[in-house]
Amino acid sequence: MDLTNLSIAIDNSWVLIATALVFFMQAGFAMVETGFTRAKNASNIIMKNLMDFAVGSLIFWVLGFTLMFGADKAGLIGTGSLFSLGSFDHLGLSIPISTFLIFQTVFCATAATIVSGAMAERTKFKSYLIYSFAISAVIYPIVGHWIWGGGWLANLGFHDFAGSTVVHSIGGWAALMGAYILGPRIGKYGKNGEVNTICAHNITLGALGVFILWFGWFGFNPGSTLSGMDFEATGHIFMTTNLAAAMGATVAMFITWFKNGKPDVGFTLNGALAGLVGITAGCDLVSPGGAVIIGLISAFVVVFGAEFIEKKLKVDDPVGAVSVHGLCGVVGTLCVGLFAVDGGLFYGGGLSMFGIQLLGALAVAVWTLGTTFVLFKAIDKTVGLRVSAEEETVGLDILEHGTTAYPCFYTKAKGMEVPVEK
Amino acid sequence: MDLTNLSIAIDNSWVLIATALVFFMQAGFAMVETGFTRAKNASNIIMKNLMDFAVGSLIFWVLGFTLMFGADKAGLIGTGSLFSLGSFDHLGLSIPISTFLIFQTVFCATAATIVSGAMAERTKFKSYLIYSFAISAVIYPIVGHWIWGGGWLANLGFHDFAGSTVVHSIGGWAALMGAYILGPRIGKYGKNGEVNTICAHNITLGALGVFILWFGWFGFNPGSTLSGMDFEATGHIFMTTNLAAAMGATVAMFITWFKNGKPDVGFTLNGALAGLVGITAGCDLVSPGGAVIIGLISAFVVVFGAEFIEKKLKVDDPVGAVSVHGLCGVVGTLCVGLFAVDGGLFYGGGLSMFGIQLLGALAVAVWTLGTTFVLFKAIDKTVGLRVSAEEETVGLDILEHGTTAYPCFYTKAKGMEVPVEK
Amino acid sequence: MDLTNLSIAIDNSWVLIATALVFFMQAGFAMVETGFTRAKNASNIIMKNLMDFAVGSLIFWVLGFTLMFGADKAGLIGTGSLFSLGSFDHLGLSIPISTFLIFQTVFCATAATIVSGAMAERTKFKSYLIYSFAISAVIYPIVGHWIWGGGWLANLGFHDFAGSTVVHSIGGWAALMGAYILGPRIGKYGKNGEVNTICAHNITLGALGVFILWFGWFGFNPGSTLSGMDFEATGHIFMTTNLAAAMGATVAMFITWFKNGKPDVGFTLNGALAGLVGITAGCDLVSPGGAVIIGLISAFVVVFGAEFIEKKLKVDDPVGAVSVHGLCGVVGTLCVGLFAVDGGLFYGGGLSMFGIQLLGALAVAVWTLGTTFVLFKAIDKTVGLRVSAEEETVGLDILEHGTTAYPCFYTKAKGMEVPVEK
Repeated sequence: MDLTNLSIAIDNSWVLIATALVFFMQAGFAMVETGFTRAKNASNIIMKNLMDFAVGSLIFWVLGFTLMFGADKAGLIGTGSLFSLGSFDHLGLSIPISTFLIFQTVFCATAATIVSGAMAERTKFKSYLIYSFAISAVIYPIVGHWIWGGGWLANLGFHDFAGSTVVHSIGGWAALMGAYILGPRIGKYGKNGEVNTICAHNITLGALGVFILWFGWFGFNPGSTLSGMDFEATGHIFMTTNLAAAMGATVAMFITWFKNGKPDVGFTLNGALAGLVGITAGCDLVSPGGAVIIGLISAFVVVFGAEFIEKKLKVDDPVGAVSVHGLCGVVGTLCVGLFAVDGGLFYGGGLSMFGIQLLGALAVAVWTLGTTFVLFKAIDKTVGLRVSAEEETVGLDILEHGTTAYPCFYTKAKGMEVPVEK
Repeated sequence: MDLTNLSIAIDNSWVLIATALVFFMQAGFAMVETGFTRAKNASNIIMKNLMDFAVGSLIFWVLGFTLMFGADKAGLIGTGSLFSLGSFDHLGLSIPISTFLIFQTVFCATAATIVSGAMAERTKFKSYLIYSFAISAVIYPIVGHWIWGGGWLANLGFHDFAGSTVVHSIGGWAALMGAYILGPRIGKYGKNGEVNTICAHNITLGALGVFILWFGWFGFNPGSTLSGMDFEATGHIFMTTNLAAAMGATVAMFITWFKNGKPDVGFTLNGALAGLVGITAGCDLVSPGGAVIIGLISAFVVVFGAEFIEKKLKVDDPVGAVSVHGLCGVVGTLCVGLFAVDGGLFYGGGLSMFGIQLLGALAVAVWTLGTTFVLFKAIDKTVGLRVSAEEETVGLDILEHGTTAYPCFYTKAKGMEVPVEK
Repeated sequence: MDLTNLSIAIDNSWVLIATALVFFMQAGFAMVETGFTRAKNASNIIMKNLMDFAVGSLIFWVLGFTLMFGADKAGLIGTGSLFSLGSFDHLGLSIPISTFLIFQTVFCATAATIVSGAMAERTKFKSYLIYSFAISAVIYPIVGHWIWGGGWLANLGFHDFAGSTVVHSIGGWAALMGAYILGPRIGKYGKNGEVNTICAHNITLGALGVFILWFGWFGFNPGSTLSGMDFEATGHIFMTTNLAAAMGATVAMFITWFKNGKPDVGFTLNGALAGLVGITAGCDLVSPGGAVIIGLISAFVVVFGAEFIEKKLKVDDPVGAVSVHGLCGVVGTLCVGLFAVDGGLFYGGGLSMFGIQLLGALAVAVWTLGTTFVLFKAIDKTVGLRVSAEEETVGLDILEHGTTAYPCFYTKAKGMEVPVEK
């Protein structure tokens, strides 16, 4: 036993535990997305969340990881063997490559699963599987290479510590394109363009999902140090992550309170997520005070962004994924250029860092909107992206999966005496 | 790299992972409290649980942490700068201060959130926010200073390893005062003083909450070593914690079985929590056998304590928070003086340790009941503590937050055919 | 401080964190089992899950641990003192014995709780408690001794890294015997032998349970290294575990899609669990590619195995525990003999390893089926194993525990206007 092995073991344990926490965010997404949509589509959403993780885990191992972390080619793409084989020595990691691979796998799956919420309640299951395959195999890994794999944005000094851009804004832009091409759910917009609220079926579960996501974020951000040895950073990141989330929830609550006269549950929950997304890029570089301000900004972005998307763009995003992950992902990325204690504009660092952050955020938006436009259009023209109006009305659970999430309650509604029968 | 850094990294990782687990207890409280109350107030409870954590995180960082761990003044209070700045070298910590701060933050939030269950279904949301602010800013940190911050009780040798007193009994006493000043829910007590049961809406979720709390307690108690290097202690604490919880659940089940002829679900779940609260003070000092006995005692306390509070005191505590956290917190604290292998009465240590434990428990009870009496009375006389009878009847969700937790099921109740519409 | 202590601290922290994750699987089982059965029995299932853990924790500490890990007697049984006292130096552990004990406790509880799903909705609660006691005290620890405690199978070289056989197949075989002796639920099989589907009441919660189980498995398998220092192994195991689960879910989904025309939710979820069970024995020895194939095989086994059990054996297993844990546990154990990179048949290792795996799997099947036959028959002849037909129809919640899991929804069913009353 020597000191190096002890140090590797500490780093390795840290990253694996973080991996487990980030994995668990899949349960958080599943609960948020089912909770905030209708009961008749709950099984379908569960299936989409489960399968984008399962399919994504497989294809990221087969192909995506190499595209993201293989030997750099022109700053654009990683190259190497299929099945994550070959040498990754150029990464200079302290931890074993299998640990790094599984950690990166759960990040990829997070980006993929963001989209399912925005496309909920009207997307063909088959088509969603094709999308999952494509984002995990190619779309995500290529951006990932640019930023985390030694590509051109990395070389410019673009800073996205744990993925406000790489994970969340990719997910958010793909979500926007998916929801746009799909069109709104039946009944979302009235004949005169008025906006209707389509009901959530279980806010309690949705809230559980948010708590799970917040919990998982303590793996997401601090784990991205890739090192338990980096103890000053991990403690600091835990703190900035939590403060931004707390501020995001608090401010979002007050915004809705002032606007509507009542503190809104959905926006308060999304405010916490907004703060988490916003702080993710710069959690290592900003001060606690900076984190609080980023939480505050993210709260404004998520509330007014969601309104803009719903009312102006007329894009129907059932759970607010575009504003939470897309807009706050971008804003969080830009905030690094403003609030980074070393190099940020507000700390006397000038505009160069901000400029690079802006460039990176734009490049990723263009890439993601472009590729997902092609992807969703191609799906739409071939197998079709959207279910039939009849299926949407009856619910995707029955027609896509031959069940409902609460079979007994259907029976009950007929039987009327007890909630459960045969 | 040197040995000290390795050791710090191990301690730091340990405390941060424990922090994440303790954070997740917020989800546990949210599920227990919503599950064991009525559906019409579920969103409100979610909001209270989310916001006491969010507001508490912010204010504890701004003020509470310094009051608790700043330079000691007369054994009563910590002093220093706002925003947790300045030196904390006097604490002699091995881990970075940011790690210690976030760990203490989630403990503070645990104390704060205990109260929401006891005050459920009738408290104004605005007033609850004011309470959350006050307990996290001042009430909790000052007791915390006495015991964990080098104050007068610490100097006397008072032992509360992970917070039976600091966290749980503060929460429990504040819960008692809050529920007392609020008065019972409409319908809880009949005209002739008979006690009515007000229904729970989702025991499955409540049980999930208890499992989450038990899980989180594996951060709460073992994490309080503040050191992963202290491997003998952490393993021992894991074991005593689990044994006390297991015994608490088992004994509470049998008590209700003998009393009522059937093993009661709610009390069995609360029995597990009672064992956990009871063992928290002495998990490091008692033997496994001692832990089992503490679990047994806690089970009796929680069952008969809840009855006493409900039937004799006529205080309406919807989830039994006062008996679980308040009474078992006190009893667990006293049990240290009885069962500590080194110094406890039953191990030949005489009465001095027990005496100090008793003094500490009483002092905290007096402080907490006193300050929260003033606090809740002041709120009541100004913004008002309790919602109107109409709001209570309709449900806090609609009138405080403009929604319900299960909007579709309302629709369904009217539509009658499927659980989801529109 | 020396290097040895650092190493112990790393191992100890690793095992304790894994313990917490494995504990949390209890919540996963509780959600899966309640979600996939009827609402009228949800409280009863919660109670069974909670109590097999509580009772199991106590009795495993009192007796089971010594039977499993005490000084070997004839390769059959461990010997020593009650209450896990005495020396366990012969185990040669790096970690403290209390850490090892609590880790083994949560494994024992996992085996015990598997059974409750298969016996759901018709087992007397009292009888289930007796079963829990027996499996945790004797049945599980003795097999455990054979394989993990230095007994005869260990000496033959039988390899079951994290418990496909020790935990899952014991649970699965006991589940089969329990469900067989109980007989099917009323209404499961029609007069002409046709198979009826008995409805699940909350697939959303069931899915949450599967996510929790998957999350917990990241403690179950990697934690079984008993060492965070073994960083090459832990990273590898994380990866093989995840790949098998992902493949299991994916393949099970496609099987049902081809068979029934729709991707089935329940089988897809069980496919993930099947992959996890299947990989558990050999997660350390197989390659990532091998893990994927094991996931594929497990998916076929779980789908067709469940059909065989339901339609041919006419054994009513409400949640599919026998095929998930029993059959996939056996198949996973055998696959070690086929896919182990060092010694497996497909890697040129010949048949000897496979033969030993087969022998071990058979021996455990015989032992478990035999002892549980005696156990359940003895219970049946004395206190009775099954509730009355009336109780089964009304629901176990009301008659065993005097409540329902959703009391308000009953009221609602009568009141018809809002989901919550009184």
